[in-house]
Amino acid sequence: MSRVEPRTLSGFMELLPRDQVKMERIMQILRETYSLFAFTPLDTPVIEAAEVLLAKGGGETEKQIYRFQKGDSDLALRFDLTVPLAKYVAAHYGSLAFPFRRYQIGKVYRGERAQRGRFREFYQADIDVIGDGKLDIANEAEIPAIIYTAFTRLGLRRFRIKVNNRKLLNGFYALNGMSEKAQDIMRIVDKLDKVGEVKVKQMLIDELNMRPYKAENVLDFMAIRGSNDEILERLEAYRGMDETFDLGLEELRTVTRYLAAFGVPEENFAVDLTIARGLDYYTGTVYETELTDYPEIGSVCSGGRYDNLAEYYTDKQLPGVGISIGLTRLFYVLQEQGLLSEEVLTAPCDALVIPMTEDYGPAVEAATALRSAGLRAQLYTEKRKFKAKMGYADKIGVPFVVLLGEDEVAKGQLSVKNMESGEQQMLSAEQAAVLIRETIEKRNSAAPIRG
Amino acid sequence: MSRVEPRTLSGFMELLPRDQVKMERIMQILRETYSLFAFTPLDTPVIEAAEVLLAKGGGETEKQIYRFQKGDSDLALRFDLTVPLAKYVAAHYGSLAFPFRRYQIGKVYRGERAQRGRFREFYQADIDVIGDGKLDIANEAEIPAIIYTAFTRLGLRRFRIKVNNRKLLNGFYALNGMSEKAQDIMRIVDKLDKVGEVKVKQMLIDELNMRPYKAENVLDFMAIRGSNDEILERLEAYRGMDETFDLGLEELRTVTRYLAAFGVPEENFAVDLTIARGLDYYTGTVYETELTDYPEIGSVCSGGRYDNLAEYYTDKQLPGVGISIGLTRLFYVLQEQGLLSEEVLTAPCDALVIPMTEDYGPAVEAATALRSAGLRAQLYTEKRKFKAKMGYADKIGVPFVVLLGEDEVAKGQLSVKNMESGEQQMLSAEQAAVLIRETIEKRNSAAPIRG
Repeated sequence: MSRVEPRTLSGFMELLPRDQVKMERIMQILRETYSLFAFTPLDTPVIEAAEVLLAKGGGETEKQIYRFQKGDSDLALRFDLTVPLAKYVAAHYGSLAFPFRRYQIGKVYRGERAQRGRFREFYQADIDVIGDGKLDIANEAEIPAIIYTAFTRLGLRRFRIKVNNRKLLNGFYALNGMSEKAQDIMRIVDKLDKVGEVKVKQMLIDELNMRPYKAENVLDFMAIRGSNDEILERLEAYRGMDETFDLGLEELRTVTRYLAAFGVPEENFAVDLTIARGLDYYTGTVYETELTDYPEIGSVCSGGRYDNLAEYYTDKQLPGVGISIGLTRLFYVLQEQGLLSEEVLTAPCDALVIPMTEDYGPAVEAATALRSAGLRAQLYTEKRKFKAKMGYADKIGVPFVVLLGEDEVAKGQLSVKNMESGEQQMLSAEQAAVLIRETIEKRNSAAPIRG
Repeated sequence: MSRVEPRTLSGFMELLPRDQVKMERIMQILRETYSLFAFTPLDTPVIEAAEVLLAKGGGETEKQIYRFQKGDSDLALRFDLTVPLAKYVAAHYGSLAFPFRRYQIGKVYRGERAQRGRFREFYQADIDVIGDGKLDIANEAEIPAIIYTAFTRLGLRRFRIKVNNRKLLNGFYALNGMSEKAQDIMRIVDKLDKVGEVKVKQMLIDELNMRPYKAENVLDFMAIRGSNDEILERLEAYRGMDETFDLGLEELRTVTRYLAAFGVPEENFAVDLTIARGLDYYTGTVYETELTDYPEIGSVCSGGRYDNLAEYYTDKQLPGVGISIGLTRLFYVLQEQGLLSEEVLTAPCDALVIPMTEDYGPAVEAATALRSAGLRAQLYTEKRKFKAKMGYADKIGVPFVVLLGEDEVAKGQLSVKNMESGEQQMLSAEQAAVLIRETIEKRNSAAPIRG
């Protein structure tokens, strides 16, 4: 028979079992955290009508999109979870209660140039709060507080949620007579981290015909650094010259104050005037999240406030605020940097139950008893030598092996072997469950990321 | 602005939040059950190289597949989870321990004719056990036992896992000199439930040129009914005439005996000689699962034993046994038949925390305290009238509202209102958590399906 090479496409993450368990653990913690903060889970199709997905049209996105015909239909794979959310809220508006809070963890597709650490299929883990007509600013502080909680529960310590405000930026550009160029300026300033001040200044002058002193004004503003209070204080110097600026400053002050009230420590969030987010639909607070020790990988979690989620689908005004974790890329980086905890139990089971008699009955009973106690038990029924069976136990990394020979069956007990210590005891099924659970629980409560 | 209709493609399930919660609950129970039986979670790409996905080629599948070009690549969306598993095991053979037990719950794609209750994007929830070279028959009994456990935990009571054996069928056809037509006969006999005996007999005669007495032999065999023991007893009449038949009968006896040992009650499984499964790669035990009261919807969970999982990718002999739940279709049927429990809590949170003072501080603290106790709490910060706030609580179906007015803040307590009974009490945060948890736990332990 002629064979096909069993290859996986480049740009598509496919994990080995132990790594997959770590990924599942991370997703589970995100689901739990998002649920604790009252987000309801959503699931939308991976395929949508191209017309619907590209209602906004244009830009980089359209080039990267997976788009194809099936019969008469012009179809496309979703490239984010925000557009499907907009469609969903517009389509089901009458059935939803607002503020509508949803989370979605799902795969999205972008046919980017293949590159190490870049993925064409990747998970996003999104939360959004959508208002009907209006939405209180408290939500703009709660969103990063949720991310703080999620990251902390994952085990991350050294990260910083950077916060800025688009009204503040727009106001600043207005008071400098640069409103028309605001979008372009923000696009260029976004490169500050990558290319540095000198180059950004030159780009502002060359590409936007900006006078040198105006380019310096921009860079001076972006250079404002310090503690959150210090930055806010320095921004006061600009107050009173532009209404939008003043509104943005007020919002930034409010969000900063709430963030502290929501329990986010100062070291985990920072007002940062250089972040703007590329997308032009953000209108208020914007976020990026940096791993403190790995600034070069860019933001692992971004989002912001928008005034009109679904303008391409409905005339309803639907303001909202949301944030998205680029989960596949985050996982990739954590794996590359050796930051995934080895403490987490990645074996497919907690106990491998090996019958040593012809009749599997007692082994089946033992496995059933362990499962009733909430433990993951595997019955090993292959006819192999004892050594091969123990080799299998080693290979899957199971913490306990349960042996059922004639002795054990006669006594109605189990021999329980701790695979790490090598210690073996004869116990009742109940005692075995208690012993195994103790060890398991310690490891299952470990955070999946080494902070 | 010209608007696009926010439509979802036909054949794609998109659930409202409350239904989505029920679906998530079902998926969670499947994940838990599969994990208890020591299956490790896998996740493979939705897109694969068409060449890889269609290595086996031909048949109905190829017509239904979503296949498209992107750049130079000929791509396709997976149409089941078995082919990706075969690819995975072949590609990662050296890194896996055998028997390799994996579960996967994921979306698959088939561009079928749009039809009520038929889906083009649907979830399958699969388990498979793969051996290296050989695999003990005990696994063929454990698989339906796991499905029994899963269905029972979901709340289903009236279902029957139907079991047959392909060696038994092949042997029967051989001893009747019909081996060459075995595949075609099985395909036609598969229609027994739909078109009845008379028509099947005619089809056997017309389409396969079968002599009438031979067609009757086939139908007599298929007509064997009774308790499992009775059927096995009647099959003894054929013993000794064909080796493959005898082997199949032995396997069926073994599987039936083990199934009882695994704790599956007789009413939930049945030897049924009419089931064969269309796919020609099954070689031993085969399964179909019928909802007793809805036989017309066909099998909701099917699978079987195969000798060679990945022959298109590797020369390694990889026998296995697996089963797949058609989750989207099952959910659709349960929904249509009103079998989804209303007991399950579908609100996005357990408590809606409403601050009644300017300062949200105490409300944030209360929400945080509830979350620390594992409860899902939503802080309501919109500036609306009290009545509108309570209307929102009603609309989302939240079981408890927590009010924080000046009185409560002064006393350091919370007013907790049970939205079902209307009862309101002033309590400490700890007391509130206890009260809320009691009500919640009862509902959260409810099975998602009314059996």
